[in-house]
Amino acid sequence: MRIDEKLKQLNITLPTPAAPAANYVPFVIHQNVLYISGQLPIENGKVKYTGIVGKDQNQEEAIKAAELCAINILAQAKAACEGDLEKISRCIKLGVFVASTSEFTNQPIIGNGASNLIASVLGEKGKHARFAVGVSALPLNATVEIDAIFALE
Amino acid sequence: MRIDEKLKQLNITLPTPAAPAANYVPFVIHQNVLYISGQLPIENGKVKYTGIVGKDQNQEEAIKAAELCAINILAQAKAACEGDLEKISRCIKLGVFVASTSEFTNQPIIGNGASNLIASVLGEKGKHARFAVGVSALPLNATVEIDAIFALE
Amino acid sequence: MRIDEKLKQLNITLPTPAAPAANYVPFVIHQNVLYISGQLPIENGKVKYTGIVGKDQNQEEAIKAAELCAINILAQAKAACEGDLEKISRCIKLGVFVASTSEFTNQPIIGNGASNLIASVLGEKGKHARFAVGVSALPLNATVEIDAIFALE
Repeated sequence: MRIDEKLKQLNITLPTPAAPAANYVPFVIHQNVLYISGQLPIENGKVKYTGIVGKDQNQEEAIKAAELCAINILAQAKAACEGDLEKISRCIKLGVFVASTSEFTNQPIIGNGASNLIASVLGEKGKHARFAVGVSALPLNATVEIDAIFALE
Repeated sequence: MRIDEKLKQLNITLPTPAAPAANYVPFVIHQNVLYISGQLPIENGKVKYTGIVGKDQNQEEAIKAAELCAINILAQAKAACEGDLEKISRCIKLGVFVASTSEFTNQPIIGNGASNLIASVLGEKGKHARFAVGVSALPLNATVEIDAIFALE
Repeated sequence: MRIDEKLKQLNITLPTPAAPAANYVPFVIHQNVLYISGQLPIENGKVKYTGIVGKDQNQEEAIKAAELCAINILAQAKAACEGDLEKISRCIKLGVFVASTSEFTNQPIIGNGASNLIASVLGEKGKHARFAVGVSALPLNATVEIDAIFALE
């Protein structure tokens, strides 16, 4: 199944990719490797999920935050591929940063929000390497930030 | 000396590589570059070193945690090379995350646990770039998490 | 304009690249991709900007810390290019770690200290992908640590 069709089947609409929160570009392609800048859980131009997990945010919402980061990653990937997601040959790696207290240690469960979405959309091409860590704070008080590396055809 | 022999000389037995703690793969190879997922200080299926350095964990144990992460990285690399570690042409980079209080600032010393081990085993091929940072918390309350990039022949 | 001339125009003198704070190398080149180890805001062999933003360090100084990290990155890049910065074809990515309290969420503004400097010096070649996150602590109590990936000709 084409990735576009898979997105429709999963009822996922890719947004207009978010502009970077600062002076850099949302992605760089070098030798068919696509590097995507850290994406926040932004929807309609606003950070939808804020706060530190274990203090003022909970695990369930943080999983949704990771899903939204992954949707924004796919939106950037689509822009990088000039609209044709079929150019993606592999999701190589996700870097998952979860704003966490020192007591919260379920970062992999949060990261799964993104990993499951990428795998659902891209199938075999969506199987990626990953790290997931708990950080003290994230830009705009976002709960999750995720960057990504993809291989393009 | 072959890497296998060097491991034997150093009395290091590579374990069966740990399964990822979540829905992703332990490594991805793209164009002879091997990306290894963040490895925890897991031994026999259990996180051996837990806690935050500066609070409920100390520097000496954290160095051992970093060594164990490096052993697990080599185990994944061996699996990625279908058993033949000679396929490694270079360790390119380690990303070292140390669960730290805001007062603990010896992350490079912790990271050396991994860097020294990789250099001991791989020799010239083991000289890598690195970052080492202190994070608020890590998966399963691990003290250290390290990801890696290798070049393969 | 040549990069050397641009540096002169901006009144930036690249220092002798700092030795790594531990047992690893400052950079690795693989297939024309240059991986630079995490750089601290070191000047004349000493960390110039220390402390956690939101506690014992402020935003203005942290921006200068990020600038100094970027200068050290360029110094390493120059060494990697055997003195000829024209070999750089692109800054691919910066990884920005800001020592932050859980309340400080302006990491992108801090990161801009580095991003603006790289863009000023390298022009179009300086447009990079990026992540910026808040971490609990950094080596030698540095306020900022930044690693980088460059494409070389």
